[in-house]
Amino acid sequence: MKKPVIGISMGDPAGIGPEVVVKALNSDTIAHQCRPLVIGDAVIIEREMEKHSPGRVLHSVHSVEECDFSKGVINVLDLDLPGCREVKPGEVSSIAGEAAFKAVIRMIELALKGEIDATVTGPIHKKAINEAGYHFAGHTEIFAEYTSTRDYAMFLVSEKLRIIHVTTHVSLREACDLIDPARVLSRIRLLNGGLKLLGFENPKIGVAGLNPHAGDEGLFGDEEIRSIAPAVEMARREGILVEGPVPPDTLFAKALGKHYDGCVAMYHDQGHIPFKMAGFDWNEKSKTMDSVTGVNVTLGLPIIRTSVDHGTGFDIAGKGRASAQAMIDAIELAIRMYRNNSR
Amino acid sequence: MKKPVIGISMGDPAGIGPEVVVKALNSDTIAHQCRPLVIGDAVIIEREMEKHSPGRVLHSVHSVEECDFSKGVINVLDLDLPGCREVKPGEVSSIAGEAAFKAVIRMIELALKGEIDATVTGPIHKKAINEAGYHFAGHTEIFAEYTSTRDYAMFLVSEKLRIIHVTTHVSLREACDLIDPARVLSRIRLLNGGLKLLGFENPKIGVAGLNPHAGDEGLFGDEEIRSIAPAVEMARREGILVEGPVPPDTLFAKALGKHYDGCVAMYHDQGHIPFKMAGFDWNEKSKTMDSVTGVNVTLGLPIIRTSVDHGTGFDIAGKGRASAQAMIDAIELAIRMYRNNSR
Repeated sequence: MKKPVIGISMGDPAGIGPEVVVKALNSDTIAHQCRPLVIGDAVIIEREMEKHSPGRVLHSVHSVEECDFSKGVINVLDLDLPGCREVKPGEVSSIAGEAAFKAVIRMIELALKGEIDATVTGPIHKKAINEAGYHFAGHTEIFAEYTSTRDYAMFLVSEKLRIIHVTTHVSLREACDLIDPARVLSRIRLLNGGLKLLGFENPKIGVAGLNPHAGDEGLFGDEEIRSIAPAVEMARREGILVEGPVPPDTLFAKALGKHYDGCVAMYHDQGHIPFKMAGFDWNEKSKTMDSVTGVNVTLGLPIIRTSVDHGTGFDIAGKGRASAQAMIDAIELAIRMYRNNSR
Repeated sequence: MKKPVIGISMGDPAGIGPEVVVKALNSDTIAHQCRPLVIGDAVIIEREMEKHSPGRVLHSVHSVEECDFSKGVINVLDLDLPGCREVKPGEVSSIAGEAAFKAVIRMIELALKGEIDATVTGPIHKKAINEAGYHFAGHTEIFAEYTSTRDYAMFLVSEKLRIIHVTTHVSLREACDLIDPARVLSRIRLLNGGLKLLGFENPKIGVAGLNPHAGDEGLFGDEEIRSIAPAVEMARREGILVEGPVPPDTLFAKALGKHYDGCVAMYHDQGHIPFKMAGFDWNEKSKTMDSVTGVNVTLGLPIIRTSVDHGTGFDIAGKGRASAQAMIDAIELAIRMYRNNSR
C-alpha cells in the first residue's frame, strides 16, 4: 500500500504548534508510515528545526507535487506569511490568528481535491482567529463550514477511551434542548463508522443518559425515554451493537474497563471529564498538565481530520519543552484511519 | 480520648448490607478505634456471622447502655423484625424496605439524643423503601427530613477525590435552574467545614463551572457570571481558600493531581463521573465493579453520617463474595470526623 500524504497545519505561530509538529516529525515510525507535509510558514518551521531537528533539511514547496519525500527532508507548503514571523511567543494576535487560519483552510482545500490523504491540525487560539475576523469556536466548526458538512461530531480518542459528543460548545441548558432522537441516532452511526476506521470490526457502543441515573425511569427528566432510548432502538435495528441509555456515572468507568469500545456522550463535559481524567496528568510542582494524551477527531466530514487535544500552550511557548506525544498520536491515528478507509 | 460509639445500620436485608457490616467488624483496626453498634435484626446479623465471623459472639440489646463492648462481641440493637428474616436475597420487597428504613430512623434518633457518636449506613434499595411507603430518593433525604435539616449536601470522599454537590437527584434542566449564589456559597462553606473534619487544616477548594469551558466568558451560558463567581468571591471574603469557576473538564484532573483538597460540583454526574472514574474498577470477566472505593457523606446535618457509596448489590447478595472495603472506609471516616469534631 502506498504511504499516505498527511497534511499537518502548524497551528498558531505564537503557540507550541510549530514546535510539536517539528518534534513529531523526528519520529522514525511516522517517517516509515507516511509522507508528511507541513502547511504554514517555512521560516517559522525552520526556526523550530534549528532547535529540535539538527541535520534535517527543510524543503519549501508551493504544491504537493513539488515535494521531496526523501529521508531527512521536511516538506513545508509555504503560505508566505511574513507577518507571522514577528509574532511573540505566548501572545494573542490577529496576525498569528490569520496565519493559523489560512494554513487550515489551505489544508482543507488540498484534502478535498484529493492531493493529500488526511489532515492533522496543530493547536489554534480561538481569540486570535476571532480577532483576525474568523468567527469560529474551533477547528471542528471550521472543517464543517469549509467542507459543507452538516452532520459532524467531535470524537475524542485515546488508548483508554473513545467518546463522541451529541452536543459540544453550547450552554448546558441548550445541550438539554438539543437532545432529540435524530441527533442521537446520527451520533451512534458516526461513532460506529469511526470505530471501524480505528480498526474495531464489530464495535460495541454504550450510550449515556442525559440525567442522573439515566433519569431513573422518568423520575428526573424524560430525555432518556423520549429521545435516547428510541435512537438506541433504531440503531440496534440497523444492526449496530449498542446499549443505553446507561447511567452516565457508570458508563465511562465500564468503558475504561473495556466493556464498551466507544461511548456516546450527550454534552461536552459528560465526555470531556472522563476523557481528561483518564489521560491528563497534573503536575503539582510545575502546575502544568504533564502527560496529555488524546486525539481529537472530527467524524462525518468527507475528509480525515485528527488533532492534538491540547491548546496552544502559550505559557510554555518558545521554551522548547512542549511534549510532541499528542501530535505523534494524532498523526498515527490519521494514518490508521486512512488505511482502514482504503480497505 | 474515649472510643466513639458508631451506629451502623444493616441496610436492606435482601442485599449485601448485613454481609459487609459483619465482614467490616472483623477488622481489628476498627475494633481498636471505636465501639460499633449494629442496628437492625439480630437473626439476620447472626446468619451472616455464622458464615463470616466464626468465633465471635452476638450480643442482642435494646438500648446502648446494655451493650457489651468486650473483645469478640458484636452488639446488635435488635429492632425485632421477624418479617425480614423471610426475605429472599436479591429480591425487592416492601418488608425488606420497611426493615431497612426502621433501622435508619432508629439510628438517627439515637444520634440526635447523643447516645451514639456517629452513624454509618448500609445500602438500602430505593424501590423497596418506596414500596414500604417511604417516599425518599435515598439516605441523604431521609437524614435531612428526620434531623429537620434544610442546608445539607452529598459529599463523596475517597483517598483521591473529595467532591460536594450543589444539586443531586434532579433532572439536568432542573439542576441548571437551581444554581444560584446562595446555594453555591452554602456548598463552599459546607465543603470547607467537611474538609476540616477530614483533617485538612486550611483546605484549598476548587469550584466547577456549570457550562463547557466554564461558559467561556458568557459565550455558552451565564450561570458562572451570575451565580458561581459571586459565590466564590463571597466565600473568599470569609477567608475560605477557594478558586473558580474552573472549567469542569480540568477541575477534577487537577484535583486528582492534588491541586485542590476538595471540589464543588454543580450537578450529580459532574461529581459522580470523575469520582467513579477514579475509584471504581470494572472487571470485564465477571461484569462487575471489582474495587469500589469511596464513602458517601452527608454534610450539614447535626450528626455525623457516612455511608458506603455502592448499592445493595442484589446480583451478588447471599453469595458471600461482597467486598467490605467500602464499609470499612465508611466506618473509619466516621471515626476520623468524630475525632476532628471533638478537638
